[in-house]
Amino acid sequence: MTEEAAVGGKRVRGGGGAARRAARSAVSFDSARYIERNIPNLEMLSTEALEIIEANAETVLEEIGVNFANNPAALQRWRDAGADVQGERVHIPRGLARKLCATAPERFTQHARNPERNVEIGGKSLVLSPVYGPPFVRDLDGGRRYATIEDFRSFVKLGYMSKYLHHSGGTVCEPTDVPVNKRHFDMLLAHMTLSDKPFMGSVTEPSRAQDSVDMCKILFGEEFATNNTVMTSLININSPLTFDDTMMGALEIYAANMQASIISPFIVGGAMAPVSVVGTLTQVLAEVLAGIAYSQLVRPGAPVIFGAFVTTIDMNSGAPTFGTPEASQILYGAGQLARRLNLPYRSGGGLCGSKLPDAQAAYETANTLNAALLGGVNFMLHACGWLEGGLVSSFEKFVMDADQLGILHRMAAGVPHDEEAQAMDAIREVGPGGHYLGCSHTERHFQTAFWRSDLLDNKPFETWFDEGARDTQALAAVRVKKLLDSYQQPYLDPAKAEALAAYVARRKAEMPDAFA
Amino acid sequence: MTEEAAVGGKRVRGGGGAARRAARSAVSFDSARYIERNIPNLEMLSTEALEIIEANAETVLEEIGVNFANNPAALQRWRDAGADVQGERVHIPRGLARKLCATAPERFTQHARNPERNVEIGGKSLVLSPVYGPPFVRDLDGGRRYATIEDFRSFVKLGYMSKYLHHSGGTVCEPTDVPVNKRHFDMLLAHMTLSDKPFMGSVTEPSRAQDSVDMCKILFGEEFATNNTVMTSLININSPLTFDDTMMGALEIYAANMQASIISPFIVGGAMAPVSVVGTLTQVLAEVLAGIAYSQLVRPGAPVIFGAFVTTIDMNSGAPTFGTPEASQILYGAGQLARRLNLPYRSGGGLCGSKLPDAQAAYETANTLNAALLGGVNFMLHACGWLEGGLVSSFEKFVMDADQLGILHRMAAGVPHDEEAQAMDAIREVGPGGHYLGCSHTERHFQTAFWRSDLLDNKPFETWFDEGARDTQALAAVRVKKLLDSYQQPYLDPAKAEALAAYVARRKAEMPDAFA
Repeated sequence: MTEEAAVGGKRVRGGGGAARRAARSAVSFDSARYIERNIPNLEMLSTEALEIIEANAETVLEEIGVNFANNPAALQRWRDAGADVQGERVHIPRGLARKLCATAPERFTQHARNPERNVEIGGKSLVLSPVYGPPFVRDLDGGRRYATIEDFRSFVKLGYMSKYLHHSGGTVCEPTDVPVNKRHFDMLLAHMTLSDKPFMGSVTEPSRAQDSVDMCKILFGEEFATNNTVMTSLININSPLTFDDTMMGALEIYAANMQASIISPFIVGGAMAPVSVVGTLTQVLAEVLAGIAYSQLVRPGAPVIFGAFVTTIDMNSGAPTFGTPEASQILYGAGQLARRLNLPYRSGGGLCGSKLPDAQAAYETANTLNAALLGGVNFMLHACGWLEGGLVSSFEKFVMDADQLGILHRMAAGVPHDEEAQAMDAIREVGPGGHYLGCSHTERHFQTAFWRSDLLDNKPFETWFDEGARDTQALAAVRVKKLLDSYQQPYLDPAKAEALAAYVARRKAEMPDAFA
Repeated sequence: MTEEAAVGGKRVRGGGGAARRAARSAVSFDSARYIERNIPNLEMLSTEALEIIEANAETVLEEIGVNFANNPAALQRWRDAGADVQGERVHIPRGLARKLCATAPERFTQHARNPERNVEIGGKSLVLSPVYGPPFVRDLDGGRRYATIEDFRSFVKLGYMSKYLHHSGGTVCEPTDVPVNKRHFDMLLAHMTLSDKPFMGSVTEPSRAQDSVDMCKILFGEEFATNNTVMTSLININSPLTFDDTMMGALEIYAANMQASIISPFIVGGAMAPVSVVGTLTQVLAEVLAGIAYSQLVRPGAPVIFGAFVTTIDMNSGAPTFGTPEASQILYGAGQLARRLNLPYRSGGGLCGSKLPDAQAAYETANTLNAALLGGVNFMLHACGWLEGGLVSSFEKFVMDADQLGILHRMAAGVPHDEEAQAMDAIREVGPGGHYLGCSHTERHFQTAFWRSDLLDNKPFETWFDEGARDTQALAAVRVKKLLDSYQQPYLDPAKAEALAAYVARRKAEMPDAFA
């Protein structure tokens, strides 16, 4: 494919021949491949429960129906497909949505400009992508503040350098210092030039989705970007049961261009769905069936992901809550429903409600990450950096969570049981009362036997105390600085970089600034 | 059974008729029943891998054998059972240990003096017990310091008041201000008088195990304590493959008295077992098979638990590490092996290596708690309060973890799918674009629909900020004080309290103080 792809995982600065020479001498850094699970999923709900949910979802689609607001073309597509359209309400006969979903691929490749960073989405895969959406950022030095485009770029750099992160993400924070109608240009430019990992497109306006597609044609070449999936974007359903024209407009553009969309209800439980796990799953399934069916009406075979973003709620205060048992149950159940549809599944991530990257944040994050691993998630948005219920992108939590993602890789690999793993020679060599530190099996394996955190402190108390008795947040702040200080931009063909900059300059000049 | 049992879950102070009157008017506080799982276990290892481990463990027992040190009676028992004893080395013919294990019960009841607090151990149960063993304590005010008997009593009180903790535990911290040879008296007295939950006996000397049995005969009555299991105690194997006379002496006393023992290898991976998951599981299985077989040689039918305490290690520094993927894999695998033996299983807990109750502590704890829930653990020691690799019992982490244990209860209960849970009436009532906050299904269920933390902060940012911008540790410190301030001792028949005190006074007077 593209020329820069040949540079692979090297870190290089600048362009042209000098850059290529630099690439040969630069230190390469580790970047883990997307995860292919070699372990079973946990099937939390019984087949009986799943069948009830599926039958009830069909009832919802037929009896109650879904709204496609301000979208006559969508209503016409549904009418043509055999739905009963009453005003903006689409009643979908039993079985129709499921039948339409069958043309969506079970698994697809999202290409990165560096093909070593391509990801497979679906089946037993797990692709990790960072936090999406917060208007604020937080770090130990600066506290909580509105996010800027410089913050955005820093997060893209951190994501590029995070070994266990496979994806550069989308709106890693909202660059609030850039006009609303021009943010997507700067965000896309950052993903395209500061990282070589796959990324997401804009969804806040159909025209911005089109800009995303057009910029990809520059980055990947027109032919490649036309025939391959080079973006995965986040299409939220306006739960309950409403598909607004902005999101559907973006979906239509992405589907028509064979770009992937996550079709994802966004549910604060108890407010936008019933206060029960099975009731929520019923609504989620109905919404996703309708949304994915619609994507296939736009273009059969368009790649999509079964999404489910569901929080619970503190019914006393109305605050959304994360890492809770019901949220995990919904995550597990939605994964089962997605697999029964042979569709890739998006959920999970490092979700938490805490205002600080403290123990609450970590309990809630770990609960969600564990459920996502065992619940069969294929695409994990918010895998690192999410804080305060999604209001804040935290620099420290970004590297804290990114470190924990290494655990998912190891767990997913499963447990080898070949002769070397059986270690009978070691048990024989050491015998009762001995120790294994010096035995030959240990010497062969000690460097890779156990996963090792790049961040957490396992030193003796006295050493830790002498080094300043730092908590995890303080250690993470050091790591953030170290990573950003050593960042080097991956090589990009200067002609492409210039063409992207020119496209952005031209398009920006075509429109006045808008701040809402 | 005993009279005080009739008081049930009430909080009362003092004794006699006044106490009983007080009991009727006192506010009862919540205490969750032990968990019965209604969800599947995650079977992480394949049957093929498990069969290889089982075959290799038999090879270890036969070829390499295990040491029973300084214990001629044990060697004689093994000889009589058909083992090949060479010096202190016991070679156990293939299949013999497994056959001997068959008389151990699949499930047993550990009685508490309040029968509402009885726990079932085995099958699909999960019993949660606090941290065990640390010589230090830590709290926000006092920092890290040697533990005292007053600290011990405070932890027992916190355990008694923790809704989700089913068990009072054993050495919740080491009371280092009491002579080594007299600590067990004060520890047992605390569990027996300050709580009415089940507890553990002493294992540091056979005579101390006997004291534990004798004190239980006073507390429960001689006949009851003779015919029922009223203690579960922790017998560690000196890995690799060595059974020392102190621990075996305690095991012999408990087994002979039908008291339960956890037969548990204590393994720092890479030091006391091979640096591979399957190699470690092989050694764990061989050790547990030998230990449980031995318990059944002492008394067939004695209740036992298949234990596995395995940490990983940072191979660069030699520090033990917790919440790591390999530790979880071993936890899952050992659970599968225990189930194939039809034995109750002990592992897991809130393990972490962090020096503070910070994000590291919480990530590692949550990783372990999640694995323990899904890995089929029946008895979880260290479920709350463990810090710094087991060197420290943390007051704040005790209540932080104890709060998280509520999540395990909810997850284990599974997902109901009855008509009310399906919530079709709610979906019909609300329809597209509406919201569920006021609908009748929500009103019927909002108080119990979602698990609610008693500790974590889900308030809006501004409220949280105005209240002092506290992290989880700070919130926990407040909760520790609140709980200890409102503690009220459960009723105990004054005659029994006096008899216990007299026993302790007499026994203490019989021996000089020893501090090592």
